[in-house]
Formats: sequence, structure tokens, C-alpha cells
Amino acid sequence: MSDATITDLYEVTMALSYLREGMTQPATFSCFVRELPPHRGFLIAAGAESVLDFLSDFRLRREDVEVFAETLQRPAQDVAPLLDMRFTGEVRAVPEGRVVLAGEPLMEITAPLPQAQLVESYVLNQLNHQTAVASKCVRCVIAARGRPVVDFSLRRTHGTQAAFQAARLGAMAGFAGTSNVAAAHAEQLPAVGTMAHSYIEAFEDEEAAFTAFAQCHPGPVTLLVDTYDTESGVAAAARVLNALGRGDGSAIRLDSGDLGRLAFHARAMLDNAGLPQVRIVASGGLDEFAVHDLVRSETPIDIYAVGTKVGVSADAPYLDSAYKLVAYEGRSVMKLSAAKVTAPGRKQVFRRPGCHDVIGLADETPPEGSTPLLETLMRAGGRSAPRDRLEDARQRLAADVAELPATARRIRSPQPVQAKVSRRLSVLTDKVRRRIEREVLAPFGSHA
Amino acid sequence: MSDATITDLYEVTMALSYLREGMTQPATFSCFVRELPPHRGFLIAAGAESVLDFLSDFRLRREDVEVFAETLQRPAQDVAPLLDMRFTGEVRAVPEGRVVLAGEPLMEITAPLPQAQLVESYVLNQLNHQTAVASKCVRCVIAARGRPVVDFSLRRTHGTQAAFQAARLGAMAGFAGTSNVAAAHAEQLPAVGTMAHSYIEAFEDEEAAFTAFAQCHPGPVTLLVDTYDTESGVAAAARVLNALGRGDGSAIRLDSGDLGRLAFHARAMLDNAGLPQVRIVASGGLDEFAVHDLVRSETPIDIYAVGTKVGVSADAPYLDSAYKLVAYEGRSVMKLSAAKVTAPGRKQVFRRPGCHDVIGLADETPPEGSTPLLETLMRAGGRSAPRDRLEDARQRLAADVAELPATARRIRSPQPVQAKVSRRLSVLTDKVRRRIEREVLAPFGSHA
Repeated sequence: MSDATITDLYEVTMALSYLREGMTQPATFSCFVRELPPHRGFLIAAGAESVLDFLSDFRLRREDVEVFAETLQRPAQDVAPLLDMRFTGEVRAVPEGRVVLAGEPLMEITAPLPQAQLVESYVLNQLNHQTAVASKCVRCVIAARGRPVVDFSLRRTHGTQAAFQAARLGAMAGFAGTSNVAAAHAEQLPAVGTMAHSYIEAFEDEEAAFTAFAQCHPGPVTLLVDTYDTESGVAAAARVLNALGRGDGSAIRLDSGDLGRLAFHARAMLDNAGLPQVRIVASGGLDEFAVHDLVRSETPIDIYAVGTKVGVSADAPYLDSAYKLVAYEGRSVMKLSAAKVTAPGRKQVFRRPGCHDVIGLADETPPEGSTPLLETLMRAGGRSAPRDRLEDARQRLAADVAELPATARRIRSPQPVQAKVSRRLSVLTDKVRRRIEREVLAPFGSHA
Repeated sequence: MSDATITDLYEVTMALSYLREGMTQPATFSCFVRELPPHRGFLIAAGAESVLDFLSDFRLRREDVEVFAETLQRPAQDVAPLLDMRFTGEVRAVPEGRVVLAGEPLMEITAPLPQAQLVESYVLNQLNHQTAVASKCVRCVIAARGRPVVDFSLRRTHGTQAAFQAARLGAMAGFAGTSNVAAAHAEQLPAVGTMAHSYIEAFEDEEAAFTAFAQCHPGPVTLLVDTYDTESGVAAAARVLNALGRGDGSAIRLDSGDLGRLAFHARAMLDNAGLPQVRIVASGGLDEFAVHDLVRSETPIDIYAVGTKVGVSADAPYLDSAYKLVAYEGRSVMKLSAAKVTAPGRKQVFRRPGCHDVIGLADETPPEGSTPLLETLMRAGGRSAPRDRLEDARQRLAADVAELPATARRIRSPQPVQAKVSRRLSVLTDKVRRRIEREVLAPFGSHA
């Protein structure tokens, strides 16, 4: 049973009906986020690489089609038309790491209608959550103003697959490392870690624990100082680091309490102990808001470890994303229903420096000084470009974020950047709307 | 590379230090949720089966240990002590589906210290997110007051693994089906589905789309009526269902707009068209709050499809869970730091009917009329009971939820049920606290 069965049942029933009706002409679906969640001035496109992997491998094998038949409680012959279907279409997408705005396509898929429909659920799943998490991670990096941010989210993400993604997306956003060993290995990221309170508790006292840890691990160590009482913990850490001559590159970690106050106090204690080089790591429920406040108060915290709230994008754990049919058989189509109008046609985003974006049609001439955001990443079901490197996505992200207006990058009350719509796309939208009202709705006496 | 490498780096460095110090005596770690999130009167224990699978398979193979060495940038011999480590411990846990309260152990793991430490990240990851999602799902079932609820969350969960879990946990909570084909197959759940707006748009008009769908799929069909204008959509659906004689078992789906108003209108239209048996399915950003309001208004919606907000537990996407060392070498241990005191010792929860719970020590005599909540699910690294069946978890859940006070089950402003602490556990907590203050803190002149 392949990943192709990870789909909503309606994709299968629709695909079967399309095949029965001979509706296999090319269709274009556009995936975009309708509105930004609160506290977001922009989004970071992510998930395209996972989608390309899925589409490259997409093939409905016999066992997959048997699963469909069983699930639908239909005889095998009824689902036989799906057997051996592969994805043979084209994918145009915003490369990972780029800034995207509300209404802008993250990805457009053009393929025979049944194929483009069947892959919907997986495409949305990947683009939606990866874009949500990447967009959260970058806000932490912005808030930290150059101080390293690291990922500690493994224990709170929605499963281990999501933890891999969080580590990768954090790195894309500029995180300096992850605590997740498997993800660090898979993505060749720096792995970071300290010790848990349980480690301290398993020893007679903090000094014994710190000493044993340092003796086991040569080089810099990070000692957790708040198991019992932070002041005595810092004092014990300072004694051990001095006794063993291990201050260089080492750090202490604060994980609870009033981090701002404790960091100032710990810094003074370390400096007085002749350990000005020992850094302070902070963790414990941090997100971009907490990091922002600590950094603005010039708290002497050197490294921020974020986990829970960032790995699940706690204040916006999903996006208002959609996968909408915009063209079929060369005809532009759209949906009109309450408050959810979808602009028709294959699209492109034309960006001028400073994230001045115009959403237009794919075949428009780019406005002067603009570059198109969507790139063709797959043709005829195969990747048309080499696999993207995480480092390239990271560089695109850094460059794009630097271009944003400062108001969009704000941590509190950011001002979302708004994309404009091209004249040609506006005209087409009006035209298709009128056609639907005339041909589809009017004959039935609708009030629309 | 096995799942055993899905761990935080500090688990590895701590385990190596424990081995070096010969600290391999049995340790007990307790996993519990400190406080309930807002809008939760109780939690549903979930994730234990995934943890048991992980622990049963846990073994550090050569390639895993090589990953550790590489990640730590240490020579292979430094991590060799971990080679071939298996999990040989005991697991006591609350069986999936049972109601649990703040402070109650979801699971206690007793194993040689390095083993119990190494599995922390995975255990927390699974128990935390599965308990969060199960606790969200059950609130939808409560809100629907007997009307079927189905899972449409695949497109918005944090990856596809989380989607599998959401479908399974929904079923545990009493959902009637899932749209996720692969999950339905894996867990033998009813698969449900309708059609997307794109399906309608690909045809000339709604009537053609509905007719083609019904012709392709014998038996009951669910027709999506809000692509252009809900009133004309309902009218078209009624004409097609009547023309083809397919009203029995069929339904229409409303996915946008004022669902309450539209459902009343659609119900009247269907009744007037001689289709009183056609049911109404509602979807579109629903959660337990929206379902509650619709049900209380006696809206004629027969089936509620929940997705986005439920699959990610949007208002509480994580829990304040912890995995704390409570005993080592027969000695009870605890953490004292700011606002995060952990009660020491191996524990048990004694429940009397009505969820009157007392958290006590594992070796206490159960109070009269109570039954213990934690069961031994693994001994010496192997399952000590047959694999739990989803249906059994569902029945436990239904029985436990029925026992809860009505105030805890409320959708708005629920009153969390509070567990009491046994006298023996209180006495032990005080005793360990005094020992720490005397032996660990006092020698360093702490102010604690």
C-alpha cells in the first residue's frame, strides 16, 4: 500500500467519475492561503520538496486500487480504471524559503483532471503545515536579532514526522541547530543538547552531576542550573567549570522562572567567578513574543531554545489554505459561494523589490522590474530541476525577509503586506463571474 | 537507522554519562500533564499503544550508534557502550481512551536509568499529541449529542502521520468515520466522502455534475450544494435525486456561509421536494463550539464533518506534559525549581465512580470502592497484555465520559475535575522536599 492511498475518499470517487465521463483533459489547481492568521505579516513558502517527492513516486499499484475498492465497498472492476495511474503533470511553485502573501499561489498543478484531483489531500497537507511552521520559525529568528535560536520541539510536535519537518524548517528559517538527533543526521544540521533535570536528580547533588557530565564529555558543556534553586545551581556550575578548567565554549541553561531576572543574576555570578566567556542558554515555553521581550530588555541570554510553541505553531497551527480548480480544458473556472470567491485562471506572482507583488495570469508580460515567483519544478511527472538544497532555501529566505517592510516583520501587531491584482486578472474574474451568473445560476432562478 | 535515533541529543549524552558512572539501576519516570489547557474539563489518555510499539522494537543497532557518534562528533568507541541496548523495562500506563486529570500519570516507565532516559523524547511526543487530539475529538462528540461526527482533517494535520493518528483518535472518541482512505483501511474505519467544489466546476453546471456522480456511484450519494449559490444547489440536488430515484440514504453537504440559516432553508426545500429522508451534512471550519451552537439551535444538520480545528486541536495544540524522574535506586526524587515541583515516587491513581480520583503511591492500599487506573502493559521489555483493540478503547472512553460530572463535559467554560492527593504521597513529598533542602541546597547557602 503506497502513499498514494493517503487521500480523502472523495478524491477517489471524483476521479472515478471523471474517468467514466472521459474528463481527462488538463486541469489546473491552485493552492494558496486565503488570509494570514493573526500575528503574521507574511508567510514563508514550504513543503514543495515533499510534494515533488510524493508526485514523482505517485503510482496506483494493484494493492492501492484494492484498498480503494474495499473502502468503497465496490467490486474490483469498478475501480480498475485507476490501476497504474501515475502523475504525469506539471508543477509550478514558489521555491521553498521565499516570502509569500495572502492570495498568492504557493503551487499550481496542471495535469489530467483525475490525477490533479487525486493528489489534492496530500499536497494541501504538506504545503499547509510546513508553511505554517516555517512562518512561525522565522519570527523567532527575527525576534532574536542575531542571537542563535535552536529547535527543541521533538517532544511536542504532532508525531515524529512533524518533528523532522520542524527541525528542517527551523534550519531553513535560520536556526543554529536542533536537539533532534535523527533530523540532524538526515538534514546534516548541527545537533545541540544539554542535560535534563532528571540527570541532576539521579546524582547526590548538582556538583556531582555537573562533574560527571563534564568528565564524560570533553569540550564545551551546557549545565542545567535550575533543578532546585537557580542561584545555587549557577554557583555549582561555576565551581565545576573553574575546577575542571572547562569554561571556554561552555554554557549554563535556564529553563524556568523569571528568565530575564535570573539571566541578569546568573551573568553577574559567572562574571564574578571569572567566567565571562560562559554563555547563557534560555528555554522553557519560549516563542517569538517571549524572545522579543527578552532581547528588547537586553537580557544577557546568548542562545534561545524554542520548542513546544514553535514546533506546533501554537498561535496558528493551521493556515486557511485551499486547492482550487482555476482552469479546465483551457476554460477558466471559479467558485462563487459565500465569502469564498476564487479568482480563475493559471496564475503568476510578479514581484518587484521590497515585496511589491502583483498577482496576475501566468501568460502575462511581467511588469517592468519584476521577477516571477512561481517556477516550473516538475514537467511530465518528473522533476525539471535538481532537488532543492536546504541551504539554498535558507539563503532565499534570508534575502526575501530582508526585503520586507519593517512593519511586516514586527513581532507584535505586524502589518501584512498585501499583493495587488493585475488588470488582466481582474477583468477575467469579472468575466467568469458574469458567465457563471448567466449560464449556471440564471436558468434556475437563483437570487445570486 | 532505526526509530531509536528519534531522540533529543541530551538523552544520548546523559545515557553515556550514566553508563560511565555505572548508574544503571532501575529508575522510574512519570509522564503526566501539569495543567489542563483552557476549554478542557478532562483529558483522554492516548498514545500508549504507539509507545509500546516503539519500546518493543527499541534496539540500538550499529548504524544507530554510528549516527550518535557522528552527531556528537566523537569517535565510535566513545558511544560503543550504547551498542545493542534494548528496552528491558516495565511500563504502567492508563489504557487508551480513559479519562485522565491534571497531575495524574499517563504512564510510568521503570527501567535501567540509561534506557528510561533515552526513550523520553519519543514517549513524550506520542503521549502529548495523541492525548491532546483525543481530548479535542471527544468534545465534538459531546457537542453533537448523538448526531454522527466524521473526520475530514487530513489536509490540515501536521503531516500524514498525524493524519493517521487523528483518524484513529477520532474513532476512539466515537466519530462515525473518516475521509482518510489509508487510515480507514489501516484501522478498519468507515470511510466517508462527498465531492469537492472543483468537481462541480469541472462540469457545465451543477445538475450535470450531480447526475454524473450519481451515475458513477450506485447507492447513497452526498451532493455538495454551495459551489455557486446554495439555494440553486439544493434545488439542483433535489431534481437529480428525484429524477434518479436516489433519495434514500443520500445527503447534501453545506460547506460555507451561515450554516444554521442555510440548513433550515435546505431542509424545507428538500421536504417540499418530497425528500424528507435526504440528510444534511455540514462542514467548513467546524469545531466543538460551532457544533454546540448549531445543535443547541436545533439546526436540522444530521452529520457534522470536522477537520482543520479538530485534527490539530487548534485551541490547545500541545499539552503541558512532563516526563519526570520520580524514583532512582529505590530513592524517591523530585524537582523543586520555580513553580514546577514534581511529586516523588512511583504512583497510582485510585478512581471511585464519578471520576473521584486520588493520586497516591503505587504500593498504597486502594481506598475502598476505588479501582487503580494505571495497568502494567509491559514487563521486561515485552507486552504483558495483548495489543489493545481500538474498539475496546472506544468503549472505555464512552464509559468514562458518561461518569464525568456534567460541568466537566461542558463545551463552554468546563469545570476541570481535580484529583486529590493521598496522605501518604503528601507526606512523602514533604519529606523529600526537606531532604533536598537539607542535603542539596543548604550546604551552598541557598536562599531556597
